[in-house]
Amino acid sequence: MRVAIIGATGYGGAELIRLLHGHPHITEITFHSSSQEGKAMEESYPHLSDLYTSQLQEIDPETIGKEADIVFLSTPPGVSAEYSGKLIENGAKVIDLSGDLRLKEKDVYESWYERDSADTELLNEAVYGLTEWNREGIKASSLLSNPGCYPTATLLGLGPLVSEKLIDLDTLIIDAKSGTTGAGRSPSAITHFSEMNDNFKVYKVNEHKHIPEIEQTLKGWSESDVTVTFTPHLVPMTRGIMATMYGKATMSVTENQLRELYEEMYKDAPFIRIREDGKYPSTKEVYGTNYCDIGLTYDERTGRITIVSVIDNLVKGASGQAIQNMNLMLGFEENEGLNQVPVYP
Amino acid sequence: MRVAIIGATGYGGAELIRLLHGHPHITEITFHSSSQEGKAMEESYPHLSDLYTSQLQEIDPETIGKEADIVFLSTPPGVSAEYSGKLIENGAKVIDLSGDLRLKEKDVYESWYERDSADTELLNEAVYGLTEWNREGIKASSLLSNPGCYPTATLLGLGPLVSEKLIDLDTLIIDAKSGTTGAGRSPSAITHFSEMNDNFKVYKVNEHKHIPEIEQTLKGWSESDVTVTFTPHLVPMTRGIMATMYGKATMSVTENQLRELYEEMYKDAPFIRIREDGKYPSTKEVYGTNYCDIGLTYDERTGRITIVSVIDNLVKGASGQAIQNMNLMLGFEENEGLNQVPVYP
Amino acid sequence: MRVAIIGATGYGGAELIRLLHGHPHITEITFHSSSQEGKAMEESYPHLSDLYTSQLQEIDPETIGKEADIVFLSTPPGVSAEYSGKLIENGAKVIDLSGDLRLKEKDVYESWYERDSADTELLNEAVYGLTEWNREGIKASSLLSNPGCYPTATLLGLGPLVSEKLIDLDTLIIDAKSGTTGAGRSPSAITHFSEMNDNFKVYKVNEHKHIPEIEQTLKGWSESDVTVTFTPHLVPMTRGIMATMYGKATMSVTENQLRELYEEMYKDAPFIRIREDGKYPSTKEVYGTNYCDIGLTYDERTGRITIVSVIDNLVKGASGQAIQNMNLMLGFEENEGLNQVPVYP
Amino acid sequence: MRVAIIGATGYGGAELIRLLHGHPHITEITFHSSSQEGKAMEESYPHLSDLYTSQLQEIDPETIGKEADIVFLSTPPGVSAEYSGKLIENGAKVIDLSGDLRLKEKDVYESWYERDSADTELLNEAVYGLTEWNREGIKASSLLSNPGCYPTATLLGLGPLVSEKLIDLDTLIIDAKSGTTGAGRSPSAITHFSEMNDNFKVYKVNEHKHIPEIEQTLKGWSESDVTVTFTPHLVPMTRGIMATMYGKATMSVTENQLRELYEEMYKDAPFIRIREDGKYPSTKEVYGTNYCDIGLTYDERTGRITIVSVIDNLVKGASGQAIQNMNLMLGFEENEGLNQVPVYP
Repeated sequence: MRVAIIGATGYGGAELIRLLHGHPHITEITFHSSSQEGKAMEESYPHLSDLYTSQLQEIDPETIGKEADIVFLSTPPGVSAEYSGKLIENGAKVIDLSGDLRLKEKDVYESWYERDSADTELLNEAVYGLTEWNREGIKASSLLSNPGCYPTATLLGLGPLVSEKLIDLDTLIIDAKSGTTGAGRSPSAITHFSEMNDNFKVYKVNEHKHIPEIEQTLKGWSESDVTVTFTPHLVPMTRGIMATMYGKATMSVTENQLRELYEEMYKDAPFIRIREDGKYPSTKEVYGTNYCDIGLTYDERTGRITIVSVIDNLVKGASGQAIQNMNLMLGFEENEGLNQVPVYP
Repeated sequence: MRVAIIGATGYGGAELIRLLHGHPHITEITFHSSSQEGKAMEESYPHLSDLYTSQLQEIDPETIGKEADIVFLSTPPGVSAEYSGKLIENGAKVIDLSGDLRLKEKDVYESWYERDSADTELLNEAVYGLTEWNREGIKASSLLSNPGCYPTATLLGLGPLVSEKLIDLDTLIIDAKSGTTGAGRSPSAITHFSEMNDNFKVYKVNEHKHIPEIEQTLKGWSESDVTVTFTPHLVPMTRGIMATMYGKATMSVTENQLRELYEEMYKDAPFIRIREDGKYPSTKEVYGTNYCDIGLTYDERTGRITIVSVIDNLVKGASGQAIQNMNLMLGFEENEGLNQVPVYP
Repeated sequence: MRVAIIGATGYGGAELIRLLHGHPHITEITFHSSSQEGKAMEESYPHLSDLYTSQLQEIDPETIGKEADIVFLSTPPGVSAEYSGKLIENGAKVIDLSGDLRLKEKDVYESWYERDSADTELLNEAVYGLTEWNREGIKASSLLSNPGCYPTATLLGLGPLVSEKLIDLDTLIIDAKSGTTGAGRSPSAITHFSEMNDNFKVYKVNEHKHIPEIEQTLKGWSESDVTVTFTPHLVPMTRGIMATMYGKATMSVTENQLRELYEEMYKDAPFIRIREDGKYPSTKEVYGTNYCDIGLTYDERTGRITIVSVIDNLVKGASGQAIQNMNLMLGFEENEGLNQVPVYP
Repeated sequence: MRVAIIGATGYGGAELIRLLHGHPHITEITFHSSSQEGKAMEESYPHLSDLYTSQLQEIDPETIGKEADIVFLSTPPGVSAEYSGKLIENGAKVIDLSGDLRLKEKDVYESWYERDSADTELLNEAVYGLTEWNREGIKASSLLSNPGCYPTATLLGLGPLVSEKLIDLDTLIIDAKSGTTGAGRSPSAITHFSEMNDNFKVYKVNEHKHIPEIEQTLKGWSESDVTVTFTPHLVPMTRGIMATMYGKATMSVTENQLRELYEEMYKDAPFIRIREDGKYPSTKEVYGTNYCDIGLTYDERTGRITIVSVIDNLVKGASGQAIQNMNLMLGFEENEGLNQVPVYP
């Protein structure tokens, strides 16, 4: 199969390359970039020296659509809304890693993203790719909208509780912590090493674009409107997200019952690992891999459930889940190319 | 004034030395350690080379009590319960940085600390030293129990809301993040650099000893029983705590009203700084100092208040607040010796 | 092929597991540990959850030697001197990652390691496995002594210059910097996060055990006695070694000639990458992989050559090179199982 | 005394503020910036909240020269060459933290800095402020050129050996490692957290501007031309420089003799600390202070001396040394305002 990566020079693109490099069914990858056309990937990323020496190509959606079997869009806002249609028309399947196609309601998108939404038709066509919760939809899709990093960690952690109505959605609080690669490759004051090192920051309190994405899926599962409190923080580390989540239990439960529920619901999910009694994952335990590790507990004193979910934001939170979705879309095994052991320590 | 530090070789002790070094009214410091008696401080801490070359002395509470005006106990559990009485009898005032004297109810202590509590008499005598909320009590005390690091960040952030009954205590969630110095100087698997670096961990979920300490003070302020959800995390950084706190507002408020309340209640507090509209502190902004910086907001969508409170766990969360309390106990200005500018970046 | 790992719970062992997991010709791995017998690998390393749930077994060299095709010894000093013989007698090939068999002269070993050396017979049998410089010897060996991490980075960087007599060995200075995993998994004051973070340390100045290992190989290449100045440092990072090396050129050379020499001598080495003019590798550019990346220059002002060599100390500096050697010993392609792309960033 | 800081928003400026805040003889500080005129310091640096709320002022050298007793120039290349004259004419003393006035020979400056040099007259007037080696010159000066960070660590470490002709200058190699604040506050790809964290980089091999500055002073001390090999590296830490330096001893010496020499030559230097036998400083041991800590050894095997020198690049390597020089220029005690204990850990 032939793959094209549009927007290959961001972290999402680089991580797609790393993971696709070992994929048994991918025979060819082409790289496309508007800003760095003509440069070799290894110039932009010396860790790819001797591996990817060919030049970055221009973005011509018609040609790409014809030549590639599947196209990854790892692009800034607005780009995939523009290209997706043409790519599909010309025969390619498309996986969009940007946020353009995630929110189904145009006005919600426009209010949180503060820019024009993609067309309704495109939004309707796009399948939201939270793999473990939508395998059949994904297999049938030609246009996949890959979830955001925070929503992935959050929703995989909350899914069983919400779908089984075990948690009071009015009490839901998500306190999320991310490594800095979530902020992308462009240097900024926020992620300047001298000011991020040995520091811990909170940002976009109640204002993060991933809030409506989380709420949309929770609404789908619970069949009721949901508003969540979500607070993202920046950790002085490169990769990793931990979402610590809190809510009141709706009925009397034991910790074991909760764990069994998770084990059962995720029994066919190769990338979800539930920690044993009293154990919680740390972010490094999934480093470089597509795993989502989950720990959870019930506190009798407060009646609250606490769920801790960790992912590598660049893998399960972006490029890894995109390849997991590609595998389903192209008829491969779900975990092809994604069987790495976490890089620890 | 003459100061004695018992347990001088832990981080709390070393930080007392750093801060007392520049204190205008302290003329002499003696260091005491059972484990490293006879060694010089500079051997244990090369950063003190040429500064503190005298030997660590044995711990003889009678002599120390006679010779020192004030004694800091920066000791493991159980020690201050043993020494405090004798030190006071012999004329010294005592500031205890351990957790021995913080919880007023013996059974609560014994249930959370899993060891025998100090005597009731000693517990009754000990004044809890959350400086900004108990200045008069502290001035009058001879035996001060210095607050824990997490309770300090938490309670300073919640105080105005709780005392004004603006937050629903049944909905209170405290998600706390700490640098590793909170875990002390003894090497351990948890804080081994190779496994803590580039990693983010959660620990002691619903089980941390600081939970009853927080609840005891909240109960005092609110005159009702309170149970909180409190989750501590370890950040790959050396110093700093951020507590991100959530609760439902009990009445309709605006963000400005909240900020004004905080400004008003803390107007005479030299170490509390309230951030302006839409701004939140990061931990590095108080690095090495006794500041507690606070940001806060009200979210109309969810009806929740979010408060972000940061401190340096070794300063305001331990040795700095201890010196602030010492200043009050000895009749000095509250901020003597504590006027450093944060080390940034 | 069946593999046994003795001493599986150290970082070397864990990294062998990570890399062997994807090796196409390895069908079975057994884990052995004297200290943690009966525990599962995933207990010691939660990142292996669901992957390696079988128990660690005792160390019985006779049985292991019979059942395994190849045995990795990732053990403390003295152990492989004891076990290697029995393992080989019983039919296994052995790769020793400890330093026991690296130094050919017993008195040199005993002077630097301050303990008894292995027997002369064993030392004579053991082949030093700096892969790129001894492929034929390695293919023919049953007992392989895997090089130390610092010697690997140093010798791969110096090899072409020394073998071509282009550098004055009397002027050789090696300034080396390592991440903390080189110090192993046992917690210590040196690698306690609070004191290693945001810190840079020098250690074992002129006293590191890798000095005689470097000198022994340089002597072999140059056919003359060599004494080098070697200074190791600890960097606040988890993985990676950079060796910055200096020496006077013995004749007039240009930077291009040097680069061409390196390109030529390493043209069949899949894991050596030479940076282009004016470019130098950073440690992260080889993260998690078996690459050794090299940059170099000649300074006309001083007549000195500077060589910069980087590796991942746990991969090319330990377990990766061990697998590279295993591939040769078992007749596989040199790079089987080692084709990962560096994890960047 | 009244102080003006021109270029107050860079790290050098912020660090001057931190240190001058506690200086007993400074009554007033004004801040000046061309790029951020009208903004308050606390806007640019929230760690200064409530401390420095006044606005940054324009840069009018005439007015500043009249109103300030001493002016710090913490400015980009070219600026101090322009302003220094006017400031002095109007009565102020000037301390220049930029590199404009450090190199006495115009052609050397122009070749390494690739821009026009300051006027010869100004260069002649400027006194190079390596405090410990030029106290009398500094006391008499009105225009002080503050040394670079790398030259400070290097020259303080080499001074005794070079002035006593104990080291062969032809063999001198300086391998230097710096935290990232040396690269300033402007975000860049090099110091982007995601790529600097858990990474170690080498840069400007044989090309750093501090090379001629080091050589100029060594030449002055040795009365002969000197060319050194100097290699800077970036460490994933915020503050600190370690220079590891190597050279052949010119005569038979013992380690004790070397140590005694250093103790003797620096016996009146309050900020130089010599480590005892076999001990070496790490960068954190001087964190936030004006100390330069030195360890050294002689290796009989190689005949080489190794010197390890550490400083905080923002303090002794910039703003701290500038204040140390100010103290001498204004007739204060050398260590006024600089008596902080290192922030450790």
